[in-house]
This record gives sequence, C-alpha cells and structure tokens, in this order.
Amino acid sequence: MNDNQTGAGGVLARIRFDAAGLIPAIIQDDDGGDVLMLGWMDAEAVRRTLSDGRVTFWSRSRQEYWRKGDTSGHAQYVRSAALDCDGDTILVRVRQVGAACHTGARACFDVDPLQPVVIESGSEQPT
Amino acid sequence: MNDNQTGAGGVLARIRFDAAGLIPAIIQDDDGGDVLMLGWMDAEAVRRTLSDGRVTFWSRSRQEYWRKGDTSGHAQYVRSAALDCDGDTILVRVRQVGAACHTGARACFDVDPLQPVVIESGSEQPT
Repeated sequence: MNDNQTGAGGVLARIRFDAAGLIPAIIQDDDGGDVLMLGWMDAEAVRRTLSDGRVTFWSRSRQEYWRKGDTSGHAQYVRSAALDCDGDTILVRVRQVGAACHTGARACFDVDPLQPVVIESGSEQPT
Repeated sequence: MNDNQTGAGGVLARIRFDAAGLIPAIIQDDDGGDVLMLGWMDAEAVRRTLSDGRVTFWSRSRQEYWRKGDTSGHAQYVRSAALDCDGDTILVRVRQVGAACHTGARACFDVDPLQPVVIESGSEQPT
C-alpha cells in the first residue's frame, strides 16, 4: 500500500463507521493474547490511537474522549493494529499496564464466564 | 451463580443489547488465541450459540441467522464463552475449521494491518 492507504487519512477513509459514527475496537493483550475489552472509537479516537502510542476511546456514556489510563493509570500502549476485511471493526494489540477492567479484573471478560454447550468436533475437517 | 444466572435465560437477561437488539460477539481462536472476527448476535443467536455447540450470528446485511460454516464448511465449535463486565459484549472462544474470513484468510484481521505509532513504555508501572 502507498502512504495514502497506510496513513491515518487513508485508514479513516477505509473505515465503515456505524450510524453513530463509531467503530468497535477490540483490545487484545499483546503478551499472552487475552482479549481484554471492547471499546468504541470515532474517527478522532482512531486517529489519536494510531498516532499517540496509546489507546483512546470515545465514551458513549460520558460522550467524551477517554485515553485509557489517564485516570486509572492502567494505560494501553499500542503494539499493532488492524482493520477487519470489511472495515467495520478495529483490533488493537497492546501492552496493558495493570488491570484493563474497571472492576480490577485483568480483562473485562474475566468476570462473567458462561457455560455453553461444548460438542465434540475432532473428526470434522474443512470441506 | 445459580441456574437462573448461568442458564440461557439468565444470560440473556444480563445482556445489554443495543438499540437494534444486537450485541457484538468477538470470536477468538481457542488454539493460539488469535482474534478471528467480530460478528453480531441477537438474543436468539446467543441462545443458539450457547446451546448448539456452534456459533450462530445475526447477519445485519442479510437480516437472517447465519450459522457459521453451514455454507462455507468453516464452522466454529464453541469451547467457552463470557460476557464482559457491563454485559454488552460477548467473547466466544472456538475451534475454527478452516478460514474464519470470507476472503480465505484465517482471520478477518489478517487482511488490513495498520501502521500505528509505537512508543517505548518499558519503564512505566501501574500506579
């Protein structure tokens, strides 16, 4: 890709924001691979996240930018990022300082494990 | 938790669906930890996913249920699942058969890597 495609402007042009102007951002621990949380970004939050070295969200409840860790100290340092195939989700791999979750849990998905039915699938192969 | 909380009914009661009645579902490869894709589920898709052993989404573009792999063969067998701390995102860890992405890539996030600014953060500690 050329600079127009890899620069922030090109990235923002490829994103398909939702009706509220937001895109879901999956935050993954670059050390170990745990999915830490999902937040939301508008175009400016994406721009800041890609240029600032730290993750910034748009808080839907507070209607303001929220650079993770500025209050809690639990910053997320960007290691890598990717858009998905249809440009409507962003994945950011980070170095997480402390707990990602406001509950104090390392990950927001640590607090409410479910009990899905798990079936055997060992003998099946891709078609 | 008791059965009312861990059963499908209790789970659905805890979910905070969005205005369209949907919740984002992060699908993670249980073997290796890669984030494969993000899809959307309504209550019935969550119920099916937790009870059927395979991941079912609600397709926003086609407005229909979509059990991953029924057409492509690239099924997702549920290994575990969790809600996040505020009940508005679900994480499903799966055994992925073949490619998760319709492009043929293993993961939907393999096709459009970005180039964020990465800063040094080694000396910082949690506050």
